[in-house]
Amino acid sequence: MTTIAFIGLGNMGNPMAANLVKAGHDVLGFDLVPENLKTARANGVTVMADAAAAVKGADVVVTMLPAGKHVLSVYEQVNGAAKKGTLFIDSSTIDVDSSRKAHALAAHAGLLALDAPVSGGVGGAAAGTLTFMCGGSAEAFAAATPMLEKMGKKIVHCGEAGAGQAAKICNNMILGVSMIAVCEGFALAEKLGLSYQALFDVASTASGQCWSLTTYCPVPGPVPTSPANNGYKPGFAASLMLKDLMLAQEAARSSGAVTPLGAEAAQLYALFNAQGGAAKDFSGIVEFLRGA
Amino acid sequence: MTTIAFIGLGNMGNPMAANLVKAGHDVLGFDLVPENLKTARANGVTVMADAAAAVKGADVVVTMLPAGKHVLSVYEQVNGAAKKGTLFIDSSTIDVDSSRKAHALAAHAGLLALDAPVSGGVGGAAAGTLTFMCGGSAEAFAAATPMLEKMGKKIVHCGEAGAGQAAKICNNMILGVSMIAVCEGFALAEKLGLSYQALFDVASTASGQCWSLTTYCPVPGPVPTSPANNGYKPGFAASLMLKDLMLAQEAARSSGAVTPLGAEAAQLYALFNAQGGAAKDFSGIVEFLRGA
Amino acid sequence: MTTIAFIGLGNMGNPMAANLVKAGHDVLGFDLVPENLKTARANGVTVMADAAAAVKGADVVVTMLPAGKHVLSVYEQVNGAAKKGTLFIDSSTIDVDSSRKAHALAAHAGLLALDAPVSGGVGGAAAGTLTFMCGGSAEAFAAATPMLEKMGKKIVHCGEAGAGQAAKICNNMILGVSMIAVCEGFALAEKLGLSYQALFDVASTASGQCWSLTTYCPVPGPVPTSPANNGYKPGFAASLMLKDLMLAQEAARSSGAVTPLGAEAAQLYALFNAQGGAAKDFSGIVEFLRGA
Amino acid sequence: MTTIAFIGLGNMGNPMAANLVKAGHDVLGFDLVPENLKTARANGVTVMADAAAAVKGADVVVTMLPAGKHVLSVYEQVNGAAKKGTLFIDSSTIDVDSSRKAHALAAHAGLLALDAPVSGGVGGAAAGTLTFMCGGSAEAFAAATPMLEKMGKKIVHCGEAGAGQAAKICNNMILGVSMIAVCEGFALAEKLGLSYQALFDVASTASGQCWSLTTYCPVPGPVPTSPANNGYKPGFAASLMLKDLMLAQEAARSSGAVTPLGAEAAQLYALFNAQGGAAKDFSGIVEFLRGA
Repeated sequence: MTTIAFIGLGNMGNPMAANLVKAGHDVLGFDLVPENLKTARANGVTVMADAAAAVKGADVVVTMLPAGKHVLSVYEQVNGAAKKGTLFIDSSTIDVDSSRKAHALAAHAGLLALDAPVSGGVGGAAAGTLTFMCGGSAEAFAAATPMLEKMGKKIVHCGEAGAGQAAKICNNMILGVSMIAVCEGFALAEKLGLSYQALFDVASTASGQCWSLTTYCPVPGPVPTSPANNGYKPGFAASLMLKDLMLAQEAARSSGAVTPLGAEAAQLYALFNAQGGAAKDFSGIVEFLRGA
Repeated sequence: MTTIAFIGLGNMGNPMAANLVKAGHDVLGFDLVPENLKTARANGVTVMADAAAAVKGADVVVTMLPAGKHVLSVYEQVNGAAKKGTLFIDSSTIDVDSSRKAHALAAHAGLLALDAPVSGGVGGAAAGTLTFMCGGSAEAFAAATPMLEKMGKKIVHCGEAGAGQAAKICNNMILGVSMIAVCEGFALAEKLGLSYQALFDVASTASGQCWSLTTYCPVPGPVPTSPANNGYKPGFAASLMLKDLMLAQEAARSSGAVTPLGAEAAQLYALFNAQGGAAKDFSGIVEFLRGA
Repeated sequence: MTTIAFIGLGNMGNPMAANLVKAGHDVLGFDLVPENLKTARANGVTVMADAAAAVKGADVVVTMLPAGKHVLSVYEQVNGAAKKGTLFIDSSTIDVDSSRKAHALAAHAGLLALDAPVSGGVGGAAAGTLTFMCGGSAEAFAAATPMLEKMGKKIVHCGEAGAGQAAKICNNMILGVSMIAVCEGFALAEKLGLSYQALFDVASTASGQCWSLTTYCPVPGPVPTSPANNGYKPGFAASLMLKDLMLAQEAARSSGAVTPLGAEAAQLYALFNAQGGAAKDFSGIVEFLRGA
Repeated sequence: MTTIAFIGLGNMGNPMAANLVKAGHDVLGFDLVPENLKTARANGVTVMADAAAAVKGADVVVTMLPAGKHVLSVYEQVNGAAKKGTLFIDSSTIDVDSSRKAHALAAHAGLLALDAPVSGGVGGAAAGTLTFMCGGSAEAFAAATPMLEKMGKKIVHCGEAGAGQAAKICNNMILGVSMIAVCEGFALAEKLGLSYQALFDVASTASGQCWSLTTYCPVPGPVPTSPANNGYKPGFAASLMLKDLMLAQEAARSSGAVTPLGAEAAQLYALFNAQGGAAKDFSGIVEFLRGA
């Protein structure tokens, strides 16, 4: 069974590593936060002294870190410790430029690399139902798939280096804008005396249909499982939606793409966060727009 | 069989009236444009001298006019000519305030009224597959349904007077914003070196999914039936999307709803129109954003 | 001395009427609110039973009302009571379409008309230092000037019927956008560790200079007389800025002008108001953006 | 007389270096583009083999480069070659984070540093009337002032390391937004039948006044010296306005400031550029909004 090094054992990393352990893998883990390491040990992860020690004994390395600078820092630290041909899977959500630099660092050291950011949140991580959006060579993708299938349900090869990050960030920009659009629809309906259910009934089977409406309805009632029915407890926190929308704007700026609604959605989530909404589910922005 | 007066025999009104004729109704029509009347006669509509003459002989009156002021003008003109209890169905897309005034005029004259704007475009009108979003009393809705079923496939009772217009305008505001969101997603993907198909494959089964993507994909390829594959010939012209987005903004302003992305979408379509895009399909805005 | 009818004796109307009385005019006033009439009497205004009674005895009629529908309603009521050639001055801030309708009503009844909305707020009204932006014929402007000079310091003839409203609404759209721009500048400076005074010193004599910065600085310190130094007590309330920005959007929509930042500024003030800022000075939006 | 190394001899660097030569300084220059070096020699600059050679012989080093990565690269290359206590003045317009890194590199090598980005364009560079917005210690500012006064008219000490970049980027964000605001004002005035001159007359002495209106009027007529009267030849190219607006958004994102109109202005200039406006004066966006 493949020995896997897992670097970054936070809210997402720990449950993902736990699924790899359950599948029979030896998992050598590292994180800077003692609380995270405690949870990791309880899940059967072998905690190592540092990242290089974890990497030295592994055939595959998974990273799950907050930002590009962290991923690049780890890659620079451990590239020397890794055996030639080791597969590095980065499941962090980071900017595309950093992801491509990480791929280049790996290639330069004779290693395989895959960017494989996820969607599905902490729930999907625990349940092993994450979606992985992957970028890299066919060889790296094929080598990674067996591991990813232990943690996720849908594994997509999106293209070359950075394509996974690109796919995630484009999808999440569409998500952020469409969620606000649906919230505005309900805010306007309310002021016009149209019931939430009536708008839902029309739009859910018409041209206004989106996942944000039919799977994650931001007002209580029409979709009983959505966070709107649970006091807007995340779910997917507004602070994380903001992070992704800002990554999209950084990518747009850097690559020269024009994204006016993506830019405005990022600003609205920034304002919502500045006004106290950061810890709420991202659909909670409907209350901010409604003045409630 | 119910005799129906049909006032407003343009691109939408004529095929709708034709379906009523096919279903066996006597249709008494009126329009200001001779060309429209020529088509109407060819479809078996009996052309009358003016709106009042059409209304006098009818049990049900359908209006299909460009704006609120036209509907109110006709209602003021013909209310006297109508028998008590005549059902007035307004299928125009107009501002909610005017729609409620029209209902009040009808009620004052002892008539039944229903606002029943449609979606489905000229294609849906010809094929008899329109969606009607209805507002008014249960009595008016029940009385109208048999007629609407001759012209459409989905008939929804959304609420009281004006609720049909409200539902349409909220749905179409969500549509306009989500279409631009999807276009921005593809514009960003392109600049990041991610293929259109790869983004489609990810987003169509993820949280970025919307009708604008999966039914009406604004770039050629993933959805072969979309106007993107046919030189952006409408479909649904950008000028009509702008009209609906502006109606939504008027409704928001008048009712006090906060709709920042709806406002920005309206401005982007206004800019696209100012720069020559009015006659293109509304998904053609992707080329404007791409600088193509 | 010209007898002047003054219809609308609220926060602006009463001090304006008081200045006309001080200048020696007989002022016949009317308003619906008893408190306003009490103040008017104390200022030497002769309170009349209704608008028509005020108009009957006057050579000049001034209206200062909340919206276009009020102005049109008064004009329709009193046109019959006015002597031919009476000058009607509307100093309300209303939509351009209604203003032009009011001009037409007056012309139809053989009366002179001028739209003359003001800027300068309640302070300028009391001090007699208002700016009047006028639209109408040269004859009407010449006839009005002596009266306006008793209430204001700057009287500008902007063009034909409606030009005064147009000038005010265009100026105030620029104002709303530039105020938010300056607020964003200070919000960004703060986060970058640049002092408010340093940014003020640079921008006030550089290309970022605006009235919103150099006369009405939205942060305390650089301009000691600005409302920022007085707990953001109006000044010019955010609810009034919103009213003007929405009038601008209505004018843009109706006339086909593209105004994306004007639209977004209106939405930001709508959001600020929804979140409790309506009664604050409009420069208080800086705190909203700062999350304070 | 102080010997000055000047690295970066493009459109701005060459005329700035020329003014230092005219003031009697020995200027040792370096640039990668042969054409630039030809011009430099003609202006009396001594061209050196590389940046380190220029720095070795100098007491003061001025850099004028396109982006943060170029400045950091030069600082890393030449820090070793500089004598302790050499003053490094960076007049490039770069992101605040890179500027602070450059200051740190210099401090670490025992050198003085000042960020001193400019405004005034190529015209101001040639005429020696630039404004320098400076960040750094009092010692560095005092040491730099005599040199800066040979190239500029206004030298402002804005604060510590990076404060100059911060001041420039905040000022230019306000500029970009207010220019579009003024353009929208004229676009709306035109559609409402209000003349450009009438709006100018009102706004230039009212609350809508900004530098963008009174010094740089974006429509021909009211300010005969503005680029609008010269076919929108820059001036200040739209591509450069976009660069600055994107730097502002990067700074906002990185520092957590909320800047919705700044974000939207950046997007509008990006769209204008995508549609062919990059080489026009930035005030030419008025024609884009007008659909002309």
